Amino acid sequence: MSTRPRYAFLGPAGTFTEAALRRMVSPEDAEYVPVVDVPAALGAVRAGEVDFAVVAIENTVEGGVTATLDTLAEGAPLVILAETVLPVEFELVAREGIAHGDITRVTAHSHAWAQVRRWAHVTIPQAVFVPASSNAAGARAIAAGEAVEGIDVDAALAPPGTAAGLGLHLIEEHVADNEHAATRFVKVGRPAAVPEPTGRDKTTLTVHLPTDRSGALLEMLEQFAARGVNLSRIESRPRWDRPGEYSFSIDALGHVAEQRMAEALMGLRRTCPLVVFLGSYPAAADEPTPVVPGTSDADFADARAWVEQLRNGDHA
Amino acid sequence: MSTRPRYAFLGPAGTFTEAALRRMVSPEDAEYVPVVDVPAALGAVRAGEVDFAVVAIENTVEGGVTATLDTLAEGAPLVILAETVLPVEFELVAREGIAHGDITRVTAHSHAWAQVRRWAHVTIPQAVFVPASSNAAGARAIAAGEAVEGIDVDAALAPPGTAAGLGLHLIEEHVADNEHAATRFVKVGRPAAVPEPTGRDKTTLTVHLPTDRSGALLEMLEQFAARGVNLSRIESRPRWDRPGEYSFSIDALGHVAEQRMAEALMGLRRTCPLVVFLGSYPAAADEPTPVVPGTSDADFADARAWVEQLRNGDHA
Amino acid sequence: MSTRPRYAFLGPAGTFTEAALRRMVSPEDAEYVPVVDVPAALGAVRAGEVDFAVVAIENTVEGGVTATLDTLAEGAPLVILAETVLPVEFELVAREGIAHGDITRVTAHSHAWAQVRRWAHVTIPQAVFVPASSNAAGARAIAAGEAVEGIDVDAALAPPGTAAGLGLHLIEEHVADNEHAATRFVKVGRPAAVPEPTGRDKTTLTVHLPTDRSGALLEMLEQFAARGVNLSRIESRPRWDRPGEYSFSIDALGHVAEQRMAEALMGLRRTCPLVVFLGSYPAAADEPTPVVPGTSDADFADARAWVEQLRNGDHA
Amino acid sequence: MSTRPRYAFLGPAGTFTEAALRRMVSPEDAEYVPVVDVPAALGAVRAGEVDFAVVAIENTVEGGVTATLDTLAEGAPLVILAETVLPVEFELVAREGIAHGDITRVTAHSHAWAQVRRWAHVTIPQAVFVPASSNAAGARAIAAGEAVEGIDVDAALAPPGTAAGLGLHLIEEHVADNEHAATRFVKVGRPAAVPEPTGRDKTTLTVHLPTDRSGALLEMLEQFAARGVNLSRIESRPRWDRPGEYSFSIDALGHVAEQRMAEALMGLRRTCPLVVFLGSYPAAADEPTPVVPGTSDADFADARAWVEQLRNGDHA
Repeated sequence: MSTRPRYAFLGPAGTFTEAALRRMVSPEDAEYVPVVDVPAALGAVRAGEVDFAVVAIENTVEGGVTATLDTLAEGAPLVILAETVLPVEFELVAREGIAHGDITRVTAHSHAWAQVRRWAHVTIPQAVFVPASSNAAGARAIAAGEAVEGIDVDAALAPPGTAAGLGLHLIEEHVADNEHAATRFVKVGRPAAVPEPTGRDKTTLTVHLPTDRSGALLEMLEQFAARGVNLSRIESRPRWDRPGEYSFSIDALGHVAEQRMAEALMGLRRTCPLVVFLGSYPAAADEPTPVVPGTSDADFADARAWVEQLRNGDHA
Repeated sequence: MSTRPRYAFLGPAGTFTEAALRRMVSPEDAEYVPVVDVPAALGAVRAGEVDFAVVAIENTVEGGVTATLDTLAEGAPLVILAETVLPVEFELVAREGIAHGDITRVTAHSHAWAQVRRWAHVTIPQAVFVPASSNAAGARAIAAGEAVEGIDVDAALAPPGTAAGLGLHLIEEHVADNEHAATRFVKVGRPAAVPEPTGRDKTTLTVHLPTDRSGALLEMLEQFAARGVNLSRIESRPRWDRPGEYSFSIDALGHVAEQRMAEALMGLRRTCPLVVFLGSYPAAADEPTPVVPGTSDADFADARAWVEQLRNGDHA
Repeated sequence: MSTRPRYAFLGPAGTFTEAALRRMVSPEDAEYVPVVDVPAALGAVRAGEVDFAVVAIENTVEGGVTATLDTLAEGAPLVILAETVLPVEFELVAREGIAHGDITRVTAHSHAWAQVRRWAHVTIPQAVFVPASSNAAGARAIAAGEAVEGIDVDAALAPPGTAAGLGLHLIEEHVADNEHAATRFVKVGRPAAVPEPTGRDKTTLTVHLPTDRSGALLEMLEQFAARGVNLSRIESRPRWDRPGEYSFSIDALGHVAEQRMAEALMGLRRTCPLVVFLGSYPAAADEPTPVVPGTSDADFADARAWVEQLRNGDHA
Repeated sequence: MSTRPRYAFLGPAGTFTEAALRRMVSPEDAEYVPVVDVPAALGAVRAGEVDFAVVAIENTVEGGVTATLDTLAEGAPLVILAETVLPVEFELVAREGIAHGDITRVTAHSHAWAQVRRWAHVTIPQAVFVPASSNAAGARAIAAGEAVEGIDVDAALAPPGTAAGLGLHLIEEHVADNEHAATRFVKVGRPAAVPEPTGRDKTTLTVHLPTDRSGALLEMLEQFAARGVNLSRIESRPRWDRPGEYSFSIDALGHVAEQRMAEALMGLRRTCPLVVFLGSYPAAADEPTPVVPGTSDADFADARAWVEQLRNGDHA
């Protein structure tokens, strides 16, 4: 009987999400549970069918973002426990013997194609694109010698490792229009003890504003600024159920165990109609988050002690 | 020879984007040019192959957002000329004689599936999902009696109008998990005279911040607030080429022809490393944008005249 | 032997400061100790020679303000314990038998004269002003039949109560150019237990800013705004010892025993080079200070409990 | 007949204000008109009886500040044309033959005494202070061998130059408790052409806020910050006629002829119930005002041209 933790991910094997999962935990230490989409992955965590899910949360080639943020914020509480960032790059794979010049039809998911179109225009200008239902489906069609949507294809663009995994010929690797493009994936679980602060943490939040005044947005951001907390991501989305109102998805640099973040969260809690805490977890970046002078835990402790003295009439 | 304007859109016929395009201009007054993805649509405008493109820009079920924002901001200038908002809802279509209880496998694009999963769980709990490369491809497979990815399917979820368009049986319409979900589409063209202000306009911008200080974000937003301009959308995205720096995509309520917006844009231009103007155009909403007291064009004209008098020593 | 508390004030008897002192404590319950100026009054408190001082702090007719603020902020700690506001109005006094039309020379302190010049222009246009070293000195000269600076005078302007106190003829009372003008006086003592909060309190501070950036001032004010604390007075003064830097004197509405004020003070302590706490005390105004929604002590307690739960992984 | 311009100042000869006036214009080039106080000086300008007035405006030893600011802001328009800063220091003067140890009673205006008390405590500890109606009156009493308020005095503290002016013995010069203390004086006239910008200018304003919200103060300051304009002085004063509302007196660094200041003034004019412009004039400091990047006149011109191009659809 397996006692390994179970991880849901956007399957099948060979997706970028699986590559992100593999970065986080070895298949020897975890049971990989492929699911059909992000809501399914997060629903499985909520239902207790798996322990964790790994899902794309930013700038994805596989969908995610909107679905991830919305599904995280609604329903039984979930928290982010870790993140990893993968470069957006592909392999061009085919059956043995196929070279660049032989490709007349190339398949991939349409999101993947959008990331390599300039490369294709230069490298395989003769090739026509045939959309597949997923990158993995396109590559499997090549491996099986089957058509995609009734159209024969010669080659597929797929995540790194696909050629090795399916025993296909690797024509070219590191295929990408933008060498800096990347996707961020997060590991999600049910609330439990928050991971220890590391000095390079993120806190992810969903916040509703009182109104659509730009003043309201400024006031919300001042709750962070007054404690020296920087943001690494902010996205507004209309609340379709409340026209003219907005929900904000925010990544703030710091950890709820740190005073500056705790006080900023308190400020949001006091002044915003809704604040959903989606976790404090180590950021993928290696460098520690700079701490603005006057905002360390020691600074907060000193200031608190000072106010206590004032209250007691002790100004010494 | 046709002199109708040419519009590129994410094809094929039957997509949500086509429905958005149809809302904007009748096929009798325009030539519809289906393309494979958003970059292709915008590239066709830039190359002069079409006059306009209609693309999804927010909360889409067909991809768009990230690709649209990035592709708009980079390359030869483009501007948004109009917008329209479509509810996110689907039709459940099948061959004649099929009812809810008969469906064992249902197909759709995976993004569409994410929008109807709760409905499916309740209404067709027995059905297994089979991902298609697009909603249109799934519906066409039903119409042609073909398999999807080698798997036979009984029904498809597709945009409104699909049953009528393909001669399929409409089992259920208005299918959606969230009755408020919607996608925003925009009409994009090459820069020319800006559309006249209507009193309910949006201005779309891409702005780079000097640094990742939360202070820098506040200062940028104060350029709007100091002129009483509200935002209806703000999204940060990391500049993968410049770690720690961010690009912001913004919709501000107002028109470049209005003084408050003009002065806010001047403020951004003076203080931010990059400001890309992506158009001033009528918002989809019917209500006029409220004008904060002191920010009308008349208020600006009065204030300018007052300063001119001061400069001349005329305080009368 | 007297065990009544000793109060220093700007003497002699008959000054506005004495009137303010009388409002705060009856001469039966306190020993009134006249001193020559504000620094002498505050120095006497610091030296333990008196228990309290009453000094003018805002918009005074007797000097005070600058001297009071500077002397409070420098040296051994002092705190404000109470305040009272007196209207700026005078009595026109003379020897028996003198009427408005008889006055050819009128005396007063030059500050007092500045407050009644328009009245004098209309009511005693024939009168020449003769400056006295204090209002009390002018009135005493009238009572004694002596000259002021070698010049005979017919009448004096002096604080309310002077005629009764010196047995002079009261020609006119409630003399003032501006019926709304007022002076604020404070009771100052050595630090001890802070007065209990009353719901209509002020907290007085001296704060140095890091630099002269207008940004620095905004950031300082955001420490108050982020906790919903309003200011009722702010005055910058150049730090002559540090050209280009500024010291701010601030009255904030609230009490250090309240969470919103405590957290604002902590924020200042963390981010400003110097913060001097000069007391939390009941405001003279009768109405309670409005509490911005989300900033009551209960709101702070709720927010703190919420963050504690998050830290423990308890999102229930 | 004299055609020299007439300058009102707080007399008599020998005051600090006269010293400030002398710094601004030689008595050969101007007619000095002593008046009794600041309202009289400014009233004489308004009435056309003099061309200019020189009055203390900040941190004065002779009164001024409050009276100056209030009197400037109310009534027929006046503007500041120049400023000068004098150190606060005194001469100790007496009749021939008197040395430090001989002084038993010393006279001065009580404001002056407040500036030298620590020096007196150390240097002439045996001396009792006798308040005079003005510093000049005290010194003249010494010169004439007369009593002050009926009390014989041995020495006087008076502005620099008094000994030479009155033929008195100079016992000690540069007497001051705080070597950095200074008073700022301004030259005031009727509105006419504004002095040319010099790159080191100040603009003085009186501004009423809409309400007493700290938010209103922040919004007012953001009008400056959004254009990179720094403040060198800000003072709130309660509007006694409108309890809970405040008037602000502000010195901003820059000139109305500069775009950044002009746009900030426009912003105030649009959003505040009252803005009184009290002049743009060269600051006393020698260093030019630093111009924040993006706020020079060239930056404004570039930004304006850019917006004009956008409006015309010209993005080239």
